[in-house]
Amino acid sequence: MQTTLKRSADFYQIIKERRSVRYYDPSVKIPDEEIKEMIGEAILAPNGYNLNAWRFLIITDQALKEKLYPIAYHQQQVLDASAIIAVMGDLEAFWQGERVYQRAVDAGYMTEEVKNSILSTIKNWFESKTQEDLKNTLMIDASLASMQLMLAAKARGYDTVPMSGYDVEQFRKVFNIPDRYVNVMLIALGKAAKPGYPTVRLGVDEVVFWNTMS
Amino acid sequence: MQTTLKRSADFYQIIKERRSVRYYDPSVKIPDEEIKEMIGEAILAPNGYNLNAWRFLIITDQALKEKLYPIAYHQQQVLDASAIIAVMGDLEAFWQGERVYQRAVDAGYMTEEVKNSILSTIKNWFESKTQEDLKNTLMIDASLASMQLMLAAKARGYDTVPMSGYDVEQFRKVFNIPDRYVNVMLIALGKAAKPGYPTVRLGVDEVVFWNTMS
Repeated sequence: MQTTLKRSADFYQIIKERRSVRYYDPSVKIPDEEIKEMIGEAILAPNGYNLNAWRFLIITDQALKEKLYPIAYHQQQVLDASAIIAVMGDLEAFWQGERVYQRAVDAGYMTEEVKNSILSTIKNWFESKTQEDLKNTLMIDASLASMQLMLAAKARGYDTVPMSGYDVEQFRKVFNIPDRYVNVMLIALGKAAKPGYPTVRLGVDEVVFWNTMS
Repeated sequence: MQTTLKRSADFYQIIKERRSVRYYDPSVKIPDEEIKEMIGEAILAPNGYNLNAWRFLIITDQALKEKLYPIAYHQQQVLDASAIIAVMGDLEAFWQGERVYQRAVDAGYMTEEVKNSILSTIKNWFESKTQEDLKNTLMIDASLASMQLMLAAKARGYDTVPMSGYDVEQFRKVFNIPDRYVNVMLIALGKAAKPGYPTVRLGVDEVVFWNTMS
């Protein structure tokens, strides 16, 4: 939790004004340090067993964005946004609980005994799961951080658009992604050149069920 | 976007102070109307093709919470939180684009022609996808809304904990969940009786890759 939390921004304004933006000012390059601060805010999100299985491949190199452009079906934001962030999950994280939990011990948040008990629970848990279950866990955890990332960007006056429309297989091949990492989504991040389109939502009563769904 | 956005809360304070809370004051019942407001804020989240495929089964009935208690391995928050929200995705939503997009036309956000073009794109998209791809889409979209829901709760002084530790099969059986709905996570929502535990995170440099992962 070493993130610098120095800014102030109204939560309700942020969630109301955040829209998916597809046109970016290509002259605006967000400094790497500021991107790192936003990632630091994003990963305060909750996550399964606190395994921190989210990973972020941040593509800022213009030549790489040009390689990505056809893979993402020629969406203009790939070229113009300051960064394209490939949000990934790490299947190896399930085996790396010690790395996180030892630090919790060092920080005085838990005893060695509690750590060992949690690590044993985690091991039993992931050994009982299918590969599909584990991938679902990664999808969920990385998506929670992604939402917080998009809000953190808006809080700083930047905009984003989450993208699922790209050829995942080609992406993995061209970017030489090791098998341990699972693709979750791409997020374009930059300074808006045009505002996002307004959209509608179903009403709350159309998406909510009280006590029974059947 | 008919949500009432009348409150003010600092985004950075919310993301910093939100923690997973497991002890709730069982005497505090959040009014249904307030839960609906928070769902309305949550579903301002972005989502694939704006299909609004998220669904929320809100369990407030104490007898049902007691049925859920063993299914969720006797976690105390199931009994004590004001509501347990089962976040779901609706596989039928991929076929129901008309419902959302007609309203966008009615709102003057797009023409009938644009609507038809988008609906045709969506149809081509989901017909090219496997069932697993579609489920992943639901996992992602429902998780984005879940994160925003947990922040919306914190903005109002409530707390939450996302739960993946429950027997999904038993849950579906006992709550008689129709096949079209996919389980994403449970979220306990209530008034904290004890603060959440502090946790550590991996450093930003440990989860970020610049331009290449290999």
